[in-house]
Amino acid sequence: MATDTSRFDPKFTQHVIDTIGPKTDDRSRFVMSALIRHLHDFAREVELTTDEWMTGVRFMNAVGQISDSKRNEGQRISDVLGLESLVDEIAHKLVSDEQIDPTSSTILGPFWSPDAPFRDLGGSIIVNAHKGQVALMHGKVIDLKTGKGIPGAVVDIWQASANGKYDFQDPENQEPNNLRGKFRCNQNGEYYFYCLKPTAYSLPTDGPAGVLLDLLDRHPMRPAHIHLMVTHDDYKPLVNQIFPSDDPYLETDTVFAVKDDLVVEFKPKSGDPKATLDLEYNIILAPRGYEGASGPKL
Amino acid sequence: MATDTSRFDPKFTQHVIDTIGPKTDDRSRFVMSALIRHLHDFAREVELTTDEWMTGVRFMNAVGQISDSKRNEGQRISDVLGLESLVDEIAHKLVSDEQIDPTSSTILGPFWSPDAPFRDLGGSIIVNAHKGQVALMHGKVIDLKTGKGIPGAVVDIWQASANGKYDFQDPENQEPNNLRGKFRCNQNGEYYFYCLKPTAYSLPTDGPAGVLLDLLDRHPMRPAHIHLMVTHDDYKPLVNQIFPSDDPYLETDTVFAVKDDLVVEFKPKSGDPKATLDLEYNIILAPRGYEGASGPKL
Repeated sequence: MATDTSRFDPKFTQHVIDTIGPKTDDRSRFVMSALIRHLHDFAREVELTTDEWMTGVRFMNAVGQISDSKRNEGQRISDVLGLESLVDEIAHKLVSDEQIDPTSSTILGPFWSPDAPFRDLGGSIIVNAHKGQVALMHGKVIDLKTGKGIPGAVVDIWQASANGKYDFQDPENQEPNNLRGKFRCNQNGEYYFYCLKPTAYSLPTDGPAGVLLDLLDRHPMRPAHIHLMVTHDDYKPLVNQIFPSDDPYLETDTVFAVKDDLVVEFKPKSGDPKATLDLEYNIILAPRGYEGASGPKL
Repeated sequence: MATDTSRFDPKFTQHVIDTIGPKTDDRSRFVMSALIRHLHDFAREVELTTDEWMTGVRFMNAVGQISDSKRNEGQRISDVLGLESLVDEIAHKLVSDEQIDPTSSTILGPFWSPDAPFRDLGGSIIVNAHKGQVALMHGKVIDLKTGKGIPGAVVDIWQASANGKYDFQDPENQEPNNLRGKFRCNQNGEYYFYCLKPTAYSLPTDGPAGVLLDLLDRHPMRPAHIHLMVTHDDYKPLVNQIFPSDDPYLETDTVFAVKDDLVVEFKPKSGDPKATLDLEYNIILAPRGYEGASGPKL
């Protein structure tokens, strides 16, 4: 990366940063100064042309123009560039001083809904007809320090249907909250419910994310996954996704969300008229205030 | 900037870059790899939080949502961060091996129109009523190598009215192409026409640019200026802005477009019933293919 930047005004970037006024708080000053520095370093390093810059401006405008309350293209672009996954890594760098890690987090994605209903343990999140395979998903939510179950922990689940679409995206076939639900763990910290073995799907490619993936000569596929958000007042919340081990896109997830310990195995199940597959998945939560080995910054 | 990034996965960014496929052309690969690297380095350096990232995503969506055919908020954000000015510097780093520089360029800004009409030399770009001071602007368009005038060079001019608004933004008071016009130089390379002494104005602050300026505790003012785009088939085109020397915002232009040699002096004019001010402004263009001292990259 032998970039001789001396041919450009060496004072310009600092001048822009120095215009930040005295009322800006320290964190905003720090973050925005770094953003300006990296943005300028990028432009100088590649000697960004006027046409390339204008392409970027048009791209940025197009991202917002296609976004609405049900489509967050800004988040999707961020995901395609690996940024949400990196921010997740930064946020959840929690190394246990007991050599036991909590369950890995990964990105939220744009399809979580605050409106998912509570359902009874043993119930099903499958409301509408589908062409998928039904699984009984079950497990225990466990305290990282004690190893015991966490009664009352809430497991919030959402997934796309077998056609690769979430309820938001598929109003003709799915009513709101199809394949969404919250489950409150029993006194042992256990949960169990019926869901679908998930299906791989493509990001929507009719907008700027499609343009970007095309420019990068990348496929738009996400490996099949089930989203989880696991919460309890006394514990740090966990957001993650779990991926069937037989998915062909595990290595090349277009949003870089796969981690080794998030890959799970669906097993054949017999004797249950409601399901042909079984998935056991246990979740380890860190108590609030738990700091691990690296101290308070975490 | 002692940022220890070793606590984060050292392979992640390269992994994201390595997903770029074989069909991506070399320049796109180079630019996008650098963009991803700087974006990730920024996030790691400031340890970007999930909330900060999501604020950025919402900001990006809002930029497009407020943009339309007459409002380019993406360009405005880019300008507030100094990027358009930097891209302009990169594009026009032309150092003459004859120790004579062509006229400085600066940013185009979002208000240029492809529809400005040709007007006769000696005509006026002022169509509608205004509260400004009228000036006769005149000068010569000159060849950098020969020092001679360039017959037929086109001077395309646009400026805001005395209320700080361009025709686009002010349909109640201004008809389309008020304060816009193209003039073709005479056989000596001379041009002359009537315009307003320009007025300082605020960027629109009702959108994301206002949010950003507020976060940075910066004022939204642009120093008064007249935009120029000067073209001729045989010369490199010039886009710039000129600024009256008595403007209070020269040092703190919110889009960083002021350069020393773009500051001009309006002088009192007598004996012309049409104007009270006189502005002489000569423009030096470099011939196409002219490479200056630093060779073909320029």
